[in-house]
Amino acid sequence: MKLTFLTALLLASATSAAAQPQSAAVRVDPQVVALRDAALNDDYAWDITEGLTTEVGQRLAGTEAEARARAWAVVKLRSLGFSNVRIETFDMPIWTRGPESAEIVGPFPQKLAIAALGNSASTGPQGITGEVVGFDTLADLEGAPDSAVRGKIVFVSHAMPRTMDGSGYGFFGGPRRQGPTIASRKGAIAIVIRSIGTDYHRNPHTGVMTFAEGVRPIPAGALPLPDAEQLQRILKRGKPVTMRLTLLSETGRGQSGNVIAEVPGRDSSLPPILVGGHLDSWDQATGAIDDASGVALAAAAAKRIMDAGRPLRTIRVVWFGAEEPGLFGGLDYQKRHGSELHYAMAESDFGAARIWRVNSKLGKDREAEAKALQAALAPLGIVPGALDKAEGSDIGPMLEAGAPGVGLSQDGTYYFDLHHTPDDTLDKIDREALRQNVAAWTTMIAVLSGGIEPQPKRRRRR
Amino acid sequence: MKLTFLTALLLASATSAAAQPQSAAVRVDPQVVALRDAALNDDYAWDITEGLTTEVGQRLAGTEAEARARAWAVVKLRSLGFSNVRIETFDMPIWTRGPESAEIVGPFPQKLAIAALGNSASTGPQGITGEVVGFDTLADLEGAPDSAVRGKIVFVSHAMPRTMDGSGYGFFGGPRRQGPTIASRKGAIAIVIRSIGTDYHRNPHTGVMTFAEGVRPIPAGALPLPDAEQLQRILKRGKPVTMRLTLLSETGRGQSGNVIAEVPGRDSSLPPILVGGHLDSWDQATGAIDDASGVALAAAAAKRIMDAGRPLRTIRVVWFGAEEPGLFGGLDYQKRHGSELHYAMAESDFGAARIWRVNSKLGKDREAEAKALQAALAPLGIVPGALDKAEGSDIGPMLEAGAPGVGLSQDGTYYFDLHHTPDDTLDKIDREALRQNVAAWTTMIAVLSGGIEPQPKRRRRR
Repeated sequence: MKLTFLTALLLASATSAAAQPQSAAVRVDPQVVALRDAALNDDYAWDITEGLTTEVGQRLAGTEAEARARAWAVVKLRSLGFSNVRIETFDMPIWTRGPESAEIVGPFPQKLAIAALGNSASTGPQGITGEVVGFDTLADLEGAPDSAVRGKIVFVSHAMPRTMDGSGYGFFGGPRRQGPTIASRKGAIAIVIRSIGTDYHRNPHTGVMTFAEGVRPIPAGALPLPDAEQLQRILKRGKPVTMRLTLLSETGRGQSGNVIAEVPGRDSSLPPILVGGHLDSWDQATGAIDDASGVALAAAAAKRIMDAGRPLRTIRVVWFGAEEPGLFGGLDYQKRHGSELHYAMAESDFGAARIWRVNSKLGKDREAEAKALQAALAPLGIVPGALDKAEGSDIGPMLEAGAPGVGLSQDGTYYFDLHHTPDDTLDKIDREALRQNVAAWTTMIAVLSGGIEPQPKRRRRR
Repeated sequence: MKLTFLTALLLASATSAAAQPQSAAVRVDPQVVALRDAALNDDYAWDITEGLTTEVGQRLAGTEAEARARAWAVVKLRSLGFSNVRIETFDMPIWTRGPESAEIVGPFPQKLAIAALGNSASTGPQGITGEVVGFDTLADLEGAPDSAVRGKIVFVSHAMPRTMDGSGYGFFGGPRRQGPTIASRKGAIAIVIRSIGTDYHRNPHTGVMTFAEGVRPIPAGALPLPDAEQLQRILKRGKPVTMRLTLLSETGRGQSGNVIAEVPGRDSSLPPILVGGHLDSWDQATGAIDDASGVALAAAAAKRIMDAGRPLRTIRVVWFGAEEPGLFGGLDYQKRHGSELHYAMAESDFGAARIWRVNSKLGKDREAEAKALQAALAPLGIVPGALDKAEGSDIGPMLEAGAPGVGLSQDGTYYFDLHHTPDDTLDKIDREALRQNVAAWTTMIAVLSGGIEPQPKRRRRR
């Protein structure tokens, strides 16, 4: 059944790709086709995802857990046969979560679920108590007079929709990213937001925020959707609502690092292809989709190329450290390697659902290569996307600075059900979708690799 | 669209019911038909469910929160026009949850989610640490030599399947109900079980258990499915696994009570029809499906009868207290009223999904009445079930003792995704399904009521 369905999908996709005049003339290299189709049976990505989430678990940036993840990564990547496996460490500020709770004191006493946002101020063990003032949007908070907010606990709701491409996360992430700064400037004693998420479980969505320069940090937390809507219902009753918040946290300095491994190219003078994801996770789950599966599928694809022979260009696998608290790994890599040329960069950090679109930004003179990439991916059910766009979290600053990139977009329809919640665990990974991801990444690397030559067979010693 | 679908459903069900020879001759009283169909637009049940979960929230048996729920209930039932609204209080032992946590100390340090089971012993704030010994089934634990268990933390997994009628809860609930006693007898220092649930969220399923007479209480907790499977993966690596458990709790005495309200019958000498649910909830959620919706739909159906006129028999609405920790409300009601005759008893305590089956146990001499009930319910898509069976939690002991009863079975396919978890919140209620429930209950009461006479219009005073 599975194979029949896949065959039908491949045929349908191929037909649709052939119908597009611009792709019709592109013939996909049989070596790429063979690598792509073989990767649909990949087990490397699952093994890495399962191993990292099981044997390391949660791995908050800058903590000893993330250090264990780096040690695990080095052993794993070496055992897979990668070359030049190394760690590039860097120092960073760290924020760690303590016990946290929220309750309505009146008029209807009850507990709510809550999680502090990264960089939230600590309430101290005595907690804080205040009247809640609710706003339906960030704009409503911005437009409110300071007098309506001063001395109160701000609550911001919003209406983030479910989208396939995750485009709601930018605009509707505002309450998390800018909300705390705006609330503090207006004199709020704390802020709670409706989680930047789409699910109705009692799992708050954490995530980082940074107070603007000079703004006094205040406690900031996220309520799960059921709790946020409960608070809205309570506020609608029209009586003054008092909330008690205890959000404990600590700050300090720590060390993180990027784990780097390579498949050496035949011509070491050529710029490498960078593929990666981030090794750190938030602290409340094992980070299966964010981003164990990302580091796993990027490495699995590179491993498949390595198994097939030797690419012309070096493939550099980077498992970035400390993405979640602010792209520290990406910025460290940029500081060290940003002036080196890269042939292309790609990062997987949007879950492990099926890839549905390929964007790229390889430059005007490499349009044929970009179209060859589109043609090679189309049979996997991947829509040819923009030629002047690529995305990635850690690689974002380098892409912005002009590095060539490829973006293989996962279907994000259900991504924000799990993102930054305790629910981001291994059971959420769809193994077939993960294999389609590996097939797409293997295809992408194969197309860009400059050709893979079989390893010469070693002579037997007599 | 909705009406068209409903019409189609009604026709299909009616046809299917007509095809059964035993029902063909039964003509449904037009008054019952009118009441049934009008109830498909019911708002009373939603209003009660929304009000109780919002304005009271969590309401653990024997606590001040449950007392607030009783006070809320009295106000609500009086405002709806019920008569003889009263509370029958009783004393009971109470168990309250404190902070709780679980972590793997080695070989792969990481946090797990956990919730103590009701009546768990407290570990004390220092927690306990021990080696984990895993069993796939309760039978495996039972068959293990004491030496394999002594001084260890027992972990019992199981394989509870998703079933429509909830029949897996009996057998597969064994690890929760008997597991702690068996583990303690074999010398275990604690027990953790795979939650008796079917969802893959990080929400442990709590629930009550009772140590057998003379057995030393030990700490007992439930892991969510993702954590239980994580622990299984870790154990499969074959290294000794050490776990640290902190499960704090307190015990004491408290007061609970049953809230009773009536629609007085025209003939007060006749035995009443008892309809109800339970008012208390577990402590981690607002108990929307367990059992706010149950008390709501039973009362809503009685209210609809009241609005239509005066039934021959009294309808007695009972919102039982303290069901969760051990049917205390049902047992108190039995003690006070068990010797009185009841015309029928029915309790809703299995969520608020669509009712798909009616069982009844009215006795041999009332078979015609039972079949009339089946015929009246069939157009709602309700399968005629057994004539010698009824069910209910609080009313269970009285049914066993011979009281006549009716069981309107909700579809339980997804019930154990939410049961006894933090996820049991208002957003999980499907309003259309809730209305179908009210229609079924209204139909049931109408059929059993002995006929409803319109209230005589009051003469205007001159």
